Amino acid sequence: MTDPIRTVYWDNDAVVFIDQRLLPGEETYVISRDYRQVAAAIKDLSIRGAPAIGVAAALGIALGVRHSQTASLTALQADFEIVCTTFSQTRPTARNLFWAIEGMQQHFREASAALRLRHDTDGQEALNSLKKSLITEAVRICGEDIAINRQIGAYGEALIADGDNILTHCNAGALATAGYGTALGVIRAAWEAGKGIHVYADETRPVLQGARLTAWELLREGIPVTLITDNMAGFLMKQGKVQKIVVGADRIAANGDTANKIGTYSVAVLARAHKIPFYIAAPLATFDGAMKTGRDIPIEERDPEEVTCYQGIILAPGGVNIYNPAFDVTPHRYITAFVTEQGLIYPPFGKTVASVLKTMKTS
Amino acid sequence: MTDPIRTVYWDNDAVVFIDQRLLPGEETYVISRDYRQVAAAIKDLSIRGAPAIGVAAALGIALGVRHSQTASLTALQADFEIVCTTFSQTRPTARNLFWAIEGMQQHFREASAALRLRHDTDGQEALNSLKKSLITEAVRICGEDIAINRQIGAYGEALIADGDNILTHCNAGALATAGYGTALGVIRAAWEAGKGIHVYADETRPVLQGARLTAWELLREGIPVTLITDNMAGFLMKQGKVQKIVVGADRIAANGDTANKIGTYSVAVLARAHKIPFYIAAPLATFDGAMKTGRDIPIEERDPEEVTCYQGIILAPGGVNIYNPAFDVTPHRYITAFVTEQGLIYPPFGKTVASVLKTMKTS
Repeated sequence: MTDPIRTVYWDNDAVVFIDQRLLPGEETYVISRDYRQVAAAIKDLSIRGAPAIGVAAALGIALGVRHSQTASLTALQADFEIVCTTFSQTRPTARNLFWAIEGMQQHFREASAALRLRHDTDGQEALNSLKKSLITEAVRICGEDIAINRQIGAYGEALIADGDNILTHCNAGALATAGYGTALGVIRAAWEAGKGIHVYADETRPVLQGARLTAWELLREGIPVTLITDNMAGFLMKQGKVQKIVVGADRIAANGDTANKIGTYSVAVLARAHKIPFYIAAPLATFDGAMKTGRDIPIEERDPEEVTCYQGIILAPGGVNIYNPAFDVTPHRYITAFVTEQGLIYPPFGKTVASVLKTMKTS
Repeated sequence: MTDPIRTVYWDNDAVVFIDQRLLPGEETYVISRDYRQVAAAIKDLSIRGAPAIGVAAALGIALGVRHSQTASLTALQADFEIVCTTFSQTRPTARNLFWAIEGMQQHFREASAALRLRHDTDGQEALNSLKKSLITEAVRICGEDIAINRQIGAYGEALIADGDNILTHCNAGALATAGYGTALGVIRAAWEAGKGIHVYADETRPVLQGARLTAWELLREGIPVTLITDNMAGFLMKQGKVQKIVVGADRIAANGDTANKIGTYSVAVLARAHKIPFYIAAPLATFDGAMKTGRDIPIEERDPEEVTCYQGIILAPGGVNIYNPAFDVTPHRYITAFVTEQGLIYPPFGKTVASVLKTMKTS
């Protein structure tokens, strides 16, 4: 068995992450002691995938506070808020990012109270306890993410039959999380359960997370995988070569509308036309009760160069206009079920998602 | 006004073609006096697009015969058949290739008879007349292709409204034909008629004909174009940003099922889901009465490296399995109409395509 992939973690007062921009060519780990480097890594896609972004933000916030040189709680809190703001401005769509920031903010409040810190507290020792507590919380969030993904896998693998060909889009794998993955967690769990499965991975232009990351992850573990370009998925479905579709999510609205990597919507429409079950695997942290429908979800548009260039190679004529939304929204009616750490959520999502949102702790 | 693009033509006893593999970076014309070089150019996609492949084959056959050193009609005919076989083995899907070869074969028979050549004819002068006649025929096919495309444009532009946003897939432009284009012929004609249109071009992985060729052609003529990755088309349609879809074709079966560049089928299914008219622009040479349905059309699978590499840059991990069909088949029920040089063909295609096939000369 190969070692599990560790996407982003805390080690020796630093945040360590694998630079996903270099995969599959190079497996390079970056050791970062500057929270701004972690934020920049989220922005430039060295770290990507909604759950991984959330975990990286939690660890990055703990890192920023750890290295704050301030001497009072008031000043430390000001630094903390600057760090939180830096992370909140990295990418707009992934709910997990804001969930993690809000979680760290809540922990800051609760831990300061528990440690009986006053605003004029100035001993380094007292502040160090708070800093350590934030590190512990971030490390807990990181570890919990893997546990959640294993739980998603356990619920999801029941949906997969022996012999299934499973299509996935983008990378909702170990690399999109702290480890194990959401959609690929379901696939890993089915494989670990001994089911004879085969995966079709959409390459996922423009950043090729499917080709570079999903194919790499599955090859590494010996799970059978065939890589296709995004525009081949429909033809595969027409030929009866796809039995199940599982993808991840970046943000899920209260009615079940789901933002995920650009192209997910097309896959969902094609799945419906071919009567293929279409599953979203995501932790509850991806659900956002503040968004009534998908129309409320902010969709990031990224640099045109992602489409016109690849590693310095020019793919399109200079000066051409580009539209480059990083995500699209799949209306809930195309989704067969959500696979979460608390089990499967089936329609009517207006009711079922709402009742799950109620069980989540409010920050 | 910019000069029209000349994709492939006869000049001074040579076939001249623009090397499309180098576009948009370089505009390089290759002057070829060896028919095998023309055949290789079709195989390696220097020349691509069903009508352009047909024209290149006709010119290439004339070139091969022109440089034949044989002294009798029997020997020349043997050389002619070797040349025809070479072209027939370049690519399997484009109907226009076989249409052009059959046309040249018929012309060989008819011209030999008209010139009263006997099988033991051996004067170079008599054979030269036949060679010249084949060149004239190939040049006629080349010129006729442009005239046909202008006729397709004239019929097709009536379908386009002022203000339309038109999506196209791959390149069915001047570069896919002898000039002017089929799908892009419709777009050019609408633009020339003064309609305020805007084109969305799918980049069309893996070979990026949309990014490299369609965007280049339209930019060159100042027709407004926005380039997208293939997986964005559905999201555009969902947002109401696409009013019409026009694509080309590689082979059309008797029932209207249409083989075209991989990804066309997905676009057609998405068009239907969003109630957007989906048009196929193609000359009658693309229709194949010998194919009852799309199931009969041979679909070329190409080198996995088209998916895993781009100009030497590695896009996917080594050893990953690849599925790389160059075409898919769109069932006739997804097609609103065919735009041909004889006008529009509407459903029921079982009847309407059949009656058009009857009007075509049999070879």
